Amino acid sequence: MMDDEIENGRSGYPRTFTAVRSKSYSPLIFRILRRINPRLLAIFLFVIFCGVFYVGARTSPIIVFVFSICMISFFFAVYLTKWVLAKDEGPPEMSQISDAIRDGAEGFFRTQYGTISKMAVLLALVILSIYLFRTSTPQQEAAGIGRFTSAFITVAAFLLGALCSGMAGYVGMWVSVRANVRVSSAARRSAREALQIAVRAGGFSAIIVVGMAVFGVAILYATFYYWLEVDTPGSMRVTDLPLLLVGYGFGASFVALFAQLGGGIYTKAADVGADLVGKVEQGIPEDDPRNPAVIADLVGDNVGDCAARGADLFESIAAEIISAMILGGTMAQKCKIEDPSGFILFPLVVHSFDLVVSSVGILSIRGTRDPGTLGAIEDPMTILQKGYSITIVLAVLTFGLSTRWLLYTEQAPSAWLNFALCGLVGIITAYAFVWITKYYTDYKHEPVKTLALASCTGHGTNIIAGVALGLESTALPVLVISVAIVSAYWLGHSSGLVDDSGNPTGGLFGTAVATMGMLSTAAYVLTMDMFGPIADNAGGIVEMSQQPESVREITDVLDAVGNTTKATTKGFAIGSAALASFLLFSAYMDEVASIARVPFEQVDIAVPEIFVGGLLGSMLIFVFSAWACSAVGRTAQEVVNEVRRQFIERPGIMYYKEKPDYSRCVAIVASASLREMIKPGALAIISPIVIGIIFRILGNITNQPLLGAKVVASMLMFATVAGILMALFLNTSGGAWDNAKKYIETGALGGKGSDCHKAAITGDTVGDPFKDTAGPSLHVLIKMLATITLVMAPVFLDTVYLLGIVHLLIVGVKTHTRISSTVLSVLPTGGHHRREKEVHIYCTIAVFCTSTRHDFLNGRARNGEANIQTSCGTNDVTLPIKSNLKRHQARGSKTRREDLAENIAVKGALGMALQVCYSVKN
Amino acid sequence: MMDDEIENGRSGYPRTFTAVRSKSYSPLIFRILRRINPRLLAIFLFVIFCGVFYVGARTSPIIVFVFSICMISFFFAVYLTKWVLAKDEGPPEMSQISDAIRDGAEGFFRTQYGTISKMAVLLALVILSIYLFRTSTPQQEAAGIGRFTSAFITVAAFLLGALCSGMAGYVGMWVSVRANVRVSSAARRSAREALQIAVRAGGFSAIIVVGMAVFGVAILYATFYYWLEVDTPGSMRVTDLPLLLVGYGFGASFVALFAQLGGGIYTKAADVGADLVGKVEQGIPEDDPRNPAVIADLVGDNVGDCAARGADLFESIAAEIISAMILGGTMAQKCKIEDPSGFILFPLVVHSFDLVVSSVGILSIRGTRDPGTLGAIEDPMTILQKGYSITIVLAVLTFGLSTRWLLYTEQAPSAWLNFALCGLVGIITAYAFVWITKYYTDYKHEPVKTLALASCTGHGTNIIAGVALGLESTALPVLVISVAIVSAYWLGHSSGLVDDSGNPTGGLFGTAVATMGMLSTAAYVLTMDMFGPIADNAGGIVEMSQQPESVREITDVLDAVGNTTKATTKGFAIGSAALASFLLFSAYMDEVASIARVPFEQVDIAVPEIFVGGLLGSMLIFVFSAWACSAVGRTAQEVVNEVRRQFIERPGIMYYKEKPDYSRCVAIVASASLREMIKPGALAIISPIVIGIIFRILGNITNQPLLGAKVVASMLMFATVAGILMALFLNTSGGAWDNAKKYIETGALGGKGSDCHKAAITGDTVGDPFKDTAGPSLHVLIKMLATITLVMAPVFLDTVYLLGIVHLLIVGVKTHTRISSTVLSVLPTGGHHRREKEVHIYCTIAVFCTSTRHDFLNGRARNGEANIQTSCGTNDVTLPIKSNLKRHQARGSKTRREDLAENIAVKGALGMALQVCYSVKN
Repeated sequence: MMDDEIENGRSGYPRTFTAVRSKSYSPLIFRILRRINPRLLAIFLFVIFCGVFYVGARTSPIIVFVFSICMISFFFAVYLTKWVLAKDEGPPEMSQISDAIRDGAEGFFRTQYGTISKMAVLLALVILSIYLFRTSTPQQEAAGIGRFTSAFITVAAFLLGALCSGMAGYVGMWVSVRANVRVSSAARRSAREALQIAVRAGGFSAIIVVGMAVFGVAILYATFYYWLEVDTPGSMRVTDLPLLLVGYGFGASFVALFAQLGGGIYTKAADVGADLVGKVEQGIPEDDPRNPAVIADLVGDNVGDCAARGADLFESIAAEIISAMILGGTMAQKCKIEDPSGFILFPLVVHSFDLVVSSVGILSIRGTRDPGTLGAIEDPMTILQKGYSITIVLAVLTFGLSTRWLLYTEQAPSAWLNFALCGLVGIITAYAFVWITKYYTDYKHEPVKTLALASCTGHGTNIIAGVALGLESTALPVLVISVAIVSAYWLGHSSGLVDDSGNPTGGLFGTAVATMGMLSTAAYVLTMDMFGPIADNAGGIVEMSQQPESVREITDVLDAVGNTTKATTKGFAIGSAALASFLLFSAYMDEVASIARVPFEQVDIAVPEIFVGGLLGSMLIFVFSAWACSAVGRTAQEVVNEVRRQFIERPGIMYYKEKPDYSRCVAIVASASLREMIKPGALAIISPIVIGIIFRILGNITNQPLLGAKVVASMLMFATVAGILMALFLNTSGGAWDNAKKYIETGALGGKGSDCHKAAITGDTVGDPFKDTAGPSLHVLIKMLATITLVMAPVFLDTVYLLGIVHLLIVGVKTHTRISSTVLSVLPTGGHHRREKEVHIYCTIAVFCTSTRHDFLNGRARNGEANIQTSCGTNDVTLPIKSNLKRHQARGSKTRREDLAENIAVKGALGMALQVCYSVKN
Repeated sequence: MMDDEIENGRSGYPRTFTAVRSKSYSPLIFRILRRINPRLLAIFLFVIFCGVFYVGARTSPIIVFVFSICMISFFFAVYLTKWVLAKDEGPPEMSQISDAIRDGAEGFFRTQYGTISKMAVLLALVILSIYLFRTSTPQQEAAGIGRFTSAFITVAAFLLGALCSGMAGYVGMWVSVRANVRVSSAARRSAREALQIAVRAGGFSAIIVVGMAVFGVAILYATFYYWLEVDTPGSMRVTDLPLLLVGYGFGASFVALFAQLGGGIYTKAADVGADLVGKVEQGIPEDDPRNPAVIADLVGDNVGDCAARGADLFESIAAEIISAMILGGTMAQKCKIEDPSGFILFPLVVHSFDLVVSSVGILSIRGTRDPGTLGAIEDPMTILQKGYSITIVLAVLTFGLSTRWLLYTEQAPSAWLNFALCGLVGIITAYAFVWITKYYTDYKHEPVKTLALASCTGHGTNIIAGVALGLESTALPVLVISVAIVSAYWLGHSSGLVDDSGNPTGGLFGTAVATMGMLSTAAYVLTMDMFGPIADNAGGIVEMSQQPESVREITDVLDAVGNTTKATTKGFAIGSAALASFLLFSAYMDEVASIARVPFEQVDIAVPEIFVGGLLGSMLIFVFSAWACSAVGRTAQEVVNEVRRQFIERPGIMYYKEKPDYSRCVAIVASASLREMIKPGALAIISPIVIGIIFRILGNITNQPLLGAKVVASMLMFATVAGILMALFLNTSGGAWDNAKKYIETGALGGKGSDCHKAAITGDTVGDPFKDTAGPSLHVLIKMLATITLVMAPVFLDTVYLLGIVHLLIVGVKTHTRISSTVLSVLPTGGHHRREKEVHIYCTIAVFCTSTRHDFLNGRARNGEANIQTSCGTNDVTLPIKSNLKRHQARGSKTRREDLAENIAVKGALGMALQVCYSVKN
């Protein structure tokens, strides 16, 4: 019915969203799969399966282990989803609403990912051209990998990463739009059952997301290993292999950034718009069916929270695995460890165990023995926490096991113990982050209570208090992360692993292990996070289908718990982002050193340009947050105007006499959020590249090699720091506002409808884009900046041709002026100034030749010299010219390239001058 | 009458503020001066004057020039204040209100500065003890300056800086509480006259502030020069002299920080409290006499805007002069410039010219020819801008003149031209900052209009849009400052000034010159800024004394212009803070290098600890802003509750039947803001010290010399960057909200009283603490962090004893454990384990001796050896022990000090072991 309305095209709105109509739509790949003979498919899958295992077995037994765990997990995930889908969809009024939500979500997803995939292909072409024109690194040369292979590898990895990230997002949304109605239906029977369905649905996508990250990296690794014949003589060393995977991380974060931005803008614009008119102006409750924006709001939960968070966590894990592999490889190589594969593959094993322990955690949340009756509502948070505790205990055990298995080396027998402690540091950090976030955002604690109290003196004081709370809440997490970085670094440093000259080298790897420790329960945390929007949606469906109060109570409790788990996951995500980007930063420095063939170990912020880089990096964070927030604000204003219009044009809505036009709101939000996600996304991608190129050019002009790379490094570091703080601020203040409102709604300080409540709603509205659009996008941004600089590193260095054109133009003009004046001054004076034009042409050729390393003019010079020598039999004319040249060349310090240019030009000029002399003589 | 009420003590409120009562109070110094025979005083002053000039003349003719200009300016300032005070105070109802404001302001000022001075004395003692226990730098040793002299110099400079900063604040407030009523009175006659009075009053304090900064530094410089016999053989070089002045800068910024915090909290808590109840709840206009918080609000303008901004700008200029002098000295020394005094004293001359050109600018704003009639209202902004243009043109000319005069050197004949261009870069930057701030905060431009539009969809969207606007507005200023830093650096770099080995050295000095260029119209800018609160107050007095509409119109126009000039000054202040702190940072690195006697040229953020330092530094900014905002929020809530109480308890207030209890609000705000200013202030002062010490200890443990200093450096840089961005965000968003409200009040979008207007008022309320408390405090904080690290540098290094106690304890225990086990293991085995306690005692003594560098145990060892040699006549027993020792000592790398400790301990143990053997033998 709502579909009909869109079909009639009454809206006149951009019809980018027409696909909403096709209810029976399922992705192309599914349709193809469905048409294939099932038996053929099974055989086909089995062959692929065997092939993958064969490649894995050729690579390392560890890879086989990882593959097996991933396979088992995928089967477990299929079991979970079958279990969830077997539940009933409830009465038709519920499934009708659920269908509308599903259509909206899938429609938006398709349009959004259509846009994203176009951009990804474009970017892939850019990367391809950059890598085709860059020179190879010494490692690549040693391994016999040409430019083409290197370009192909990077682009393939990028596209695979982007594809997997997109799939992660899709899976998250796919299950959530199906589980929501089943949870609502189950809530009519038992709270416990509803909880279990939501958790298992969340668990399904969590396992798929984590499993895919691990599986993807493992397949890439094994394929490259097999294909490039790594570790055979004359080819690549295994320790250099992880650097080939960075494209995967970049692809993942590229998609995640846009998924998070688009989804975040969608969900919050719909939410804010619905609340502002519905709750504040008309005074109808949340998720009331009379509100025209309510379906858009419910769709938003799926595309914003499920799809985007799936892509976000996928990207976190992928980036963290890759950076840890790079650091492990570098360290193993420095320490000359005999079998480095343990150090390199360690992250994959940790995350395989993550899948196992999280599965146990998910299964530990069971339905009650008597699911038929409507039992008393237990606190779902306690149940979830119990599962988390089980998972953490198991994670500590398996982490210790994996360190002993893979990180034991005879060179430093106790190193594995140090690394196990690093892992413990990471796990404790994760726990601390979760606890701190809870302290600042849960209304059981002081901060939110104070915030609620501030609402009672008006909108203004509520906002001031919330902003202050958010800014203050950055303190504890930063202290925790500081202690974690320093202590993990020192645990690694003192592990006993030393390089050739006896310097301890394990420090950075220690930090990497701590990051893995932090993420070692990622699948369970993601499950708890995914649980949130499913419960939220279920609540919405229950409310919209006008279920009895008791059912609503159950979903309300689940929803409230979901809010808390959502907030804590954000704390978790930002903590891991902080650690991961510190790792990626080190990987970037390694990469630059390897491309530039000079050591790159310092980023000295006392250099003005590098300081400026930091300033620009921090600014990037501020502007990005601004654009993300204002995108929500603008889109929300469109929603507000539309909802107001509907209430005015259809006065019957308020008395349930007319049906609101839900689809129009869905279409408005979808098209607006697609439009709005481009600007901040483009800013994030383009600015590091532009800054790198500008400062690279500046560095060339001012004789500071590596300036571009260094400025980008400093930009990255400052952006990371500012990003962590800004994200903490935005997430926490948003969460606190939300819960301050909820606290008042429990009846405190006047309860619903009081002035306090109104002020608290304002705070909640402000917090929405903070905590669900800008904040989470910043997590992704931080890591995307790190991966983009890794992939784009060649652009900031001196060996790229394609993007060096601008630089060549500037340097060219400069060199031209300088050498032409030199040449003119050494030419014999008197009557030959008509030759000036000729000199300029020579110099232009010289500059061009330098850039293409051609030595056309060398021959010209030789010819000239030979000419004069044969004809005059003497060198006396050339002597003063040559001494002139020497004097001119001595002046000023030049770069190698300028020197080359000058040499060639003056040789050419010399030849010309000699010819001039010759013609004068004769 | 209001005084009576407080006197009756009805309030039961903390009576810290009782001094409000004494209307006839005038500072002690004035009372003493009044009692002295005027002729005697004149003679006394003349003698001091001559003494100062004598010292100046002995130092440099440039100093004489600076002194003369300052003197002339002071006389000019006295002329201005006489001119202002000669104006009439208007009818009694006006002067009554003005008296109440004056009492409130002066009372708060006294209490506030009483607290600040106590803290300053305490801090002076801390500094004294640190400097008494530090070792001297090589320069000091060469100059024969002992620890005591160095400590005395630093503390004296600190106290002088603090005193002058306090005076700057006092002067600003003193004139503004007297000028406000005269402006209101003049507004009854002519807009032009009112403008002229406000400008001249502002000009008076601006000239005093700038003059005092210049004069103070010049006197200190001349005194030290004369006293320490600088540049005579065997004493200090003149290029090292500026480093002695850092205490002055720190003193100034210390006072400014608390002045800004206390004043900022006061003014905005009163404003927000008054608005929330008055405007929003009761719907009475701003500054309505029925509002009990209105006097507190008007008092706030004086203590927050006048006094605090005076102290802020004073501190900016002082810090910038000192850092530029340090950099000038360093550069002159590196380049071996024959007469470096030109480079060192250049900043003083620039600011002397600033006094001259700004005076011209102030005088250019004249009354109309016919002051008797009420003329048409001209746009005061145009008049002020005209004055600014005149000042800028003159500043460019005098700046060029001063560079040619002082920076001309035969080594690089064109250097002065490059530096003149740097100055131009600075002036352009200042202009760009003013323009950008205007663009984002003036409602004639797009951003504020969009913000106003966002108000129409509710409180929430208004706040989101404002936050987004503020965050976005950081982009342009950062780009401008980036270009300014890089271009000024390169202009300086390529000036032709080179050091011994031919490296260009002028880069940083170029940045310094650009900063001076930026501040070269400081006095005029400060005049425009001071004009704001005076006009605001005048408006309040007019409103409260119920003057006719036409008079209010005039003060309203002046007030609106004042808002714009206030906002632009903030842009100006943050720009100069950014540049100045970059200079102070370089000065800090010089200082550290000089104390530690090792080169300190890099702050490498790839080191985990240094990265963590940056993280902590940025966090500091967030937490500081949080505390500043929440202080306002909390205090405002107290005001709201008080005002609500008064409206309820005295219902007659609304009908002008009962008089509200103004003084109670004044007392509440005053005591609350004094209480609230401590926490953020203490955070700012303590955290760099604590972080420096912690990482210094960590550095000692982990063998990283200078780690403390480096971490502090990184903290400083990150804090600067985060501070600049945060301040820009807070200032701009606050200004934009304010003007969006004003825009709506002009009648746009529904005008006063509409829903849009209400939402806009919420935004304005939120913006108040942003733009007038947290934002301006951040300007000061940035520079205070830089000066505190400069002064406290010894604490972060290895040569301080007093604060090293903690470190000694930790290192001591560690060393003790290690050496006692070593000693125990080398002792001959069997039956001697009862000696274990003795070994521990020896080791404790050894650790103690190491820390005091005593060699008590050496003697003990010698004795033991001598004993055994005399008694046994052989060494055979000692040989295995000695070889044991060697083996143990070879293990692990140790610091010099640990080595020393171990040597002493094992020597003692050896002696003991020998004695044991001896006793066994016999």
